Amino acid sequence: MAHPLQALRDVMAEYHIDAYLIPTADFHGSEYVGAHFACREYLSGFTGSAGTLLVFANWAGLWTDGRYFLQAAQQLEGSGIRLMKQGEPGVPTIEEFLRQSLQPEQTLGFDGRCVDARTGRRYHRLTRQLGAKLNHQLDLVDEIWPQRPPLSAQPVWELEAQYAGLSRRDKLAQLRRSMVSEGADTFLLSTLEDIAWLLNLRGNDIPCDPVFLSYLILTKETCILFANPASFSPELLAELEVDGVSLRPYDNFYAYVNRFSPSQTVLLDTRRVNTTLLTSIPSHVSVLDRPNPTELRKAIKNPVEVENMRRAHLADGIALTRFMYWLKTQLPQGTTELQAAEHLEALRRADPLYLEPSFDPILATGAHSAIVHYSPTPESDAPIQPNAFLLADTGGHYYTGTTDCTRTYAMGTLTDWQKTCYTAVLRGNLHLAAAVFRAGCTGLNLDCLARQPLWDLGLDFNHGTGHGVGYLLSVHEGPQSIRWRSLGKEPALAPGMITSDEPGVYFDGDFGIRLENLVLCMEKSQTNFGTFLGFETLTLTPFDRDAMDPTQMTPQEKALLNAYHARVHAAIAPHLPPEEAAWLAQATRPI
Amino acid sequence: MAHPLQALRDVMAEYHIDAYLIPTADFHGSEYVGAHFACREYLSGFTGSAGTLLVFANWAGLWTDGRYFLQAAQQLEGSGIRLMKQGEPGVPTIEEFLRQSLQPEQTLGFDGRCVDARTGRRYHRLTRQLGAKLNHQLDLVDEIWPQRPPLSAQPVWELEAQYAGLSRRDKLAQLRRSMVSEGADTFLLSTLEDIAWLLNLRGNDIPCDPVFLSYLILTKETCILFANPASFSPELLAELEVDGVSLRPYDNFYAYVNRFSPSQTVLLDTRRVNTTLLTSIPSHVSVLDRPNPTELRKAIKNPVEVENMRRAHLADGIALTRFMYWLKTQLPQGTTELQAAEHLEALRRADPLYLEPSFDPILATGAHSAIVHYSPTPESDAPIQPNAFLLADTGGHYYTGTTDCTRTYAMGTLTDWQKTCYTAVLRGNLHLAAAVFRAGCTGLNLDCLARQPLWDLGLDFNHGTGHGVGYLLSVHEGPQSIRWRSLGKEPALAPGMITSDEPGVYFDGDFGIRLENLVLCMEKSQTNFGTFLGFETLTLTPFDRDAMDPTQMTPQEKALLNAYHARVHAAIAPHLPPEEAAWLAQATRPI
Repeated sequence: MAHPLQALRDVMAEYHIDAYLIPTADFHGSEYVGAHFACREYLSGFTGSAGTLLVFANWAGLWTDGRYFLQAAQQLEGSGIRLMKQGEPGVPTIEEFLRQSLQPEQTLGFDGRCVDARTGRRYHRLTRQLGAKLNHQLDLVDEIWPQRPPLSAQPVWELEAQYAGLSRRDKLAQLRRSMVSEGADTFLLSTLEDIAWLLNLRGNDIPCDPVFLSYLILTKETCILFANPASFSPELLAELEVDGVSLRPYDNFYAYVNRFSPSQTVLLDTRRVNTTLLTSIPSHVSVLDRPNPTELRKAIKNPVEVENMRRAHLADGIALTRFMYWLKTQLPQGTTELQAAEHLEALRRADPLYLEPSFDPILATGAHSAIVHYSPTPESDAPIQPNAFLLADTGGHYYTGTTDCTRTYAMGTLTDWQKTCYTAVLRGNLHLAAAVFRAGCTGLNLDCLARQPLWDLGLDFNHGTGHGVGYLLSVHEGPQSIRWRSLGKEPALAPGMITSDEPGVYFDGDFGIRLENLVLCMEKSQTNFGTFLGFETLTLTPFDRDAMDPTQMTPQEKALLNAYHARVHAAIAPHLPPEEAAWLAQATRPI
Repeated sequence: MAHPLQALRDVMAEYHIDAYLIPTADFHGSEYVGAHFACREYLSGFTGSAGTLLVFANWAGLWTDGRYFLQAAQQLEGSGIRLMKQGEPGVPTIEEFLRQSLQPEQTLGFDGRCVDARTGRRYHRLTRQLGAKLNHQLDLVDEIWPQRPPLSAQPVWELEAQYAGLSRRDKLAQLRRSMVSEGADTFLLSTLEDIAWLLNLRGNDIPCDPVFLSYLILTKETCILFANPASFSPELLAELEVDGVSLRPYDNFYAYVNRFSPSQTVLLDTRRVNTTLLTSIPSHVSVLDRPNPTELRKAIKNPVEVENMRRAHLADGIALTRFMYWLKTQLPQGTTELQAAEHLEALRRADPLYLEPSFDPILATGAHSAIVHYSPTPESDAPIQPNAFLLADTGGHYYTGTTDCTRTYAMGTLTDWQKTCYTAVLRGNLHLAAAVFRAGCTGLNLDCLARQPLWDLGLDFNHGTGHGVGYLLSVHEGPQSIRWRSLGKEPALAPGMITSDEPGVYFDGDFGIRLENLVLCMEKSQTNFGTFLGFETLTLTPFDRDAMDPTQMTPQEKALLNAYHARVHAAIAPHLPPEEAAWLAQATRPI
């Protein structure tokens, strides 16, 4: 059997494709992809979660970002694939590279189902400008990957009303009203989290994200779900039928779209649908390109979801606090990052409503903690170092919701500088959580509260301060975020939104700190001056007093910390064995 | 002679105009307008600085905003003109009103020179949708206003290099490079501050804004200034000629634009040019609609301007501090707001480089201080009340720059609540001034620093926290601002920008507080984490210790106040008579 890259070049020649693009994506723009979609990894050997491979007959390059430069360099060694370090000076983007390399009359190819419609349009424009051609209908990897895993088709199950809070009938009725008020008669949805949320269904087709492969087409009268029928029990199918949802095979979706009639007005979001989908719609059909109305509704948790999320965070807080007790008092010599992750997972599993991790756990000792997206693998796994930080960024899916928490622990004695940095990150976390703000504010308005203690020291962190969190869905969801650089139209924070509050600071090769709580946006007051919002902190586990320098905290900051710790103690201690409860009382005593 | 409104209706009938719109504007989109442009006031009797009159044969209405509801109601009484309170529930906008009232085949008219091009386009679209007609070529008020003041034509004078810092030759060369890099060969400028800045010229055609009526057309080879030749001395004309600037009569501008050739590519900003200007450009000419490249250059003060601005603020600080001494220790019983304003003006005039107020002084005693845009008139003038706040928002134009300062003084004993409010406003002012932030941040990112102490109390203020300030130009200039609601594309704060820092709080009919300093954006540090910026406070006059409650300030806030007061004392005391210096030492002693 030829090497995969050579095999690809052979079929490229057969199909007269001069340059072939392999992104890391499924058909739904998901953040993580299932095994079937690991084409880039299959061809290049690079296992990171992000990267795009571009293959010419005589050249191949892999574009990836800073967190993967080291790993990609190692894994690409000897492959003949050039590492293209995104964002480094002098490194062209893929589009710039194509502009220089693609010759007139040559053809660029990719599987349009794996490229979002806006990016696809840019490639279309680029090839036209170069006098080149575009073929976005070819899944060439499928032809050369003999053992390719099939599309995942795990069972789909219903999220009961006690967890979802709102029936799928009510959600469908709401959505139809939105669709009509936008002036559309058809709504096309291909993002898996939105479909799962809308139908109160969950699956297991993507690791750490309980969704199922599907598309959905809603009209005033019908709701057609395109998914693998084998994933549905007869009972579930019958229930869906009762609610007016009919199932058709996943693979028939594009042919169905292709038969849309000229009288239809289709609402969709070109940032969220793929190139093949958009180009399958007949050209005489009117398309309204708008944000999916499901996105904001999903982000604003209903009262049942909010109350459940509080329960999930209590369960998660118990596990996290017992984990901290174990780390600080029981840790066997030589325990590694992966072993610690397993220990925490076992503690979470003790809760009957726990399902699975909400993302690959980050347990990072010493210098590993400085790598923002580090996650231990058997190759990288290291014993937890003494007199260093251990950063633990983990989360769980529960029937009652999804958690995401980062704590950075002092595993022994820290330097003064380490404590200064920890204290600055902590102060930022507390400031943001305590914010009171006018309704209408976005994350852009509040971000500096979390960063100011760091900025005062000339420090910063190169990631957002906050992301939305799904309810038993992706641990990262929009549309809101807390960041200082605008990404375009930022939506206002609204009561019911759950967002992370996770400042950090990272020193390459030395140490990193991140402290993350989830916070629920809620109304604080209505006065003559307007409506004021604030946050309730959902996460319930101590910050590490051993890592703080109290002399660098104002009385107000100490009061915020003490109030939080009192809440943690009151909530968690009753659920702990006596010696752990006694330890928690100490760990949460006023500073 | 007929009443002006009846006279207007007569000529409207003559010209077959069914609805005529009279905004408060000159031909240049200036914030304030000269006497020639006071058409709306002439017709309605309403003297406020903002308002638009719409006249039908049988109906007339004046739209104005909240700060003028009371005044407009009084001044419109008996006029037959309906007051349309902008932003109040149930009050249509002018466009909504026209959509309901204008009949097919009717004609809407206005003087297109007084309506910006984007608004003009909206009226164009509106009339087309209604099947109505538009005539934007008619200055009907000119026909009926017998004693209309002529266009102002005050002398134009040169701002010398020691003040401007950069020669007009250098500015023109820079601007030509910008123009070429934007892909244009012609640049059309009609905003008076930009023209004055670009040519290092000043005039006196608008109250409190030392600009002169003009337009400018720049090409790679030529620079044509359209202005009144009578305003220029022969010496100045000769100097301009040497620098490649030729003068043509103001009135010839539109005819000149109308002769642009099809090969030209014209750069202009449709937010800044008027409707007549844009429609005078032949349709075959390419127009690039971009922000004026002068706007950002003007906002970023050069090192000479910065150093001068510091000097202006020293002079202004001396006057303001002597004013405060007078208020707090010498104020004759019964002194009125206008008398106090005159006293302050006399103190400013003591500086040989002082020219004039940079805006109508706001001296507001007691409940007047709650009216954000109050400015005393002979009718409203009131004696300064004891045991109340006196709010003084004033500024000056100096050869060395422009100032804008607000202080709110305790004129006797205050209530605890008044002190709480003062202290919250002060803390917000100090927080913003002390901000350290990443280069790239905009005012959106920082605004909450000034508001947080107020938001914590459920209080707020309904104006921006900061506006740019011109150098011996308009006291309000863009493009930067400090606010929490986005107005579109917010530019990053950049070293050299001068912005106000002016939180406040206002209780209708009771009292108001505003504390305003000007702050200079400057680089603080460059670290591995990025470039960090901050502010230098330019304004130098005490905050009133009598109005503060120190128990509500953190040690950090007290330290910020004490450091500022120490700076004020060190800078101002040497310029004061001994008894005033002794008073200042007390007024600025550590809290």
